[in-house]
Amino acid sequence: MSKVIAAITTSVDGYVVGPDDRPGQGLGIGGERLHYWVMGGPWTYADDGRDTDGMHGADREYFEALTEGLGCGIVGRTMYDAAGAWGGTNPFPGTLIVLTHRTEDQPDPSTGFLFVDGFDAALQKARELAGDATVSLGGGADLIRQGLAADVVDELAISTAPVVPGGGKRLFEGFERDLDLDVLGTWSSPFATHVRYAVKRPG
Amino acid sequence: MSKVIAAITTSVDGYVVGPDDRPGQGLGIGGERLHYWVMGGPWTYADDGRDTDGMHGADREYFEALTEGLGCGIVGRTMYDAAGAWGGTNPFPGTLIVLTHRTEDQPDPSTGFLFVDGFDAALQKARELAGDATVSLGGGADLIRQGLAADVVDELAISTAPVVPGGGKRLFEGFERDLDLDVLGTWSSPFATHVRYAVKRPG
Repeated sequence: MSKVIAAITTSVDGYVVGPDDRPGQGLGIGGERLHYWVMGGPWTYADDGRDTDGMHGADREYFEALTEGLGCGIVGRTMYDAAGAWGGTNPFPGTLIVLTHRTEDQPDPSTGFLFVDGFDAALQKARELAGDATVSLGGGADLIRQGLAADVVDELAISTAPVVPGGGKRLFEGFERDLDLDVLGTWSSPFATHVRYAVKRPG
Repeated sequence: MSKVIAAITTSVDGYVVGPDDRPGQGLGIGGERLHYWVMGGPWTYADDGRDTDGMHGADREYFEALTEGLGCGIVGRTMYDAAGAWGGTNPFPGTLIVLTHRTEDQPDPSTGFLFVDGFDAALQKARELAGDATVSLGGGADLIRQGLAADVVDELAISTAPVVPGGGKRLFEGFERDLDLDVLGTWSSPFATHVRYAVKRPG
């Protein structure tokens, strides 16, 4: 069965977005700093990262290793909307399943997006599409927490950006399970510290 | 003026202690896992770490670099009590100032502990005692937050243990300031990922 990797970026104080995230400001106020590692340097919502070098160095090494063998991704609808549907086409390998109650505006299959209602249904569909390849849970925070709570996450990959926004949405807000992890590897750049953890199963 | 380093261990979900921390269980229920890196392996409150190898490898390299040049430390009273006053003698270099409203049970100077009431007074005393050497803020979480809020922290050093206790005391609970950090260095072991950050000052 395909491996499930939950991957997300947080701040040092544990926020996946800063305050007031919304379309056009998908990572919240000052939240661009969370994704300097993605863009390869400082960027703003206004410049959309067009002046950066692009992902490079340890950040790229981390990302390429993480996405190698990715068969199908799942993201939450809020993330999809906040990202402006990545301009209308899925930028990741395979199909990107969008978890949403509002499936009536199903995108054309050529976009690479597929709207599915319900976590279990989304995961089942993702496993079907991925075959032996990896399924990723790409956020937001609630999707990651759902996956961890359902005991279906094999690997948790956290990129920590060197910023303390002091507010926003916390990755582990309201999560009360106790989990043991094993460090699989770390990657460090000026823009993020990436750690891949195996989630240990009880018993 | 002496450099101030705030150093603390947290879980992946941002807790510095698990649920129900108290004397004899200073890191809360299951909280021993936060300090496997300190002990060099799994330990329990019952065995007090006597069967572990002691701190080693990347954990020791991190710790030695961090504490090199340490002149004086400050910890909160709760941490001091929860640690059982480290058996009655300060195990760290220099004097260890304990921030507490209850200074009437001042320990004998030979113990290496000094009770001081009030954060500003404690920091002033620590700077006096440290001279050109470093002042550390060693926790708990509220002390670290006080230092960050007062803009006196030059460096934040966070050790993240591969565990999600799902409850306890959050390092950044109620902290609403926005801070930019610079990654100074990272150290990785099976027991923790250590990152030293410079706290950037506005302007």
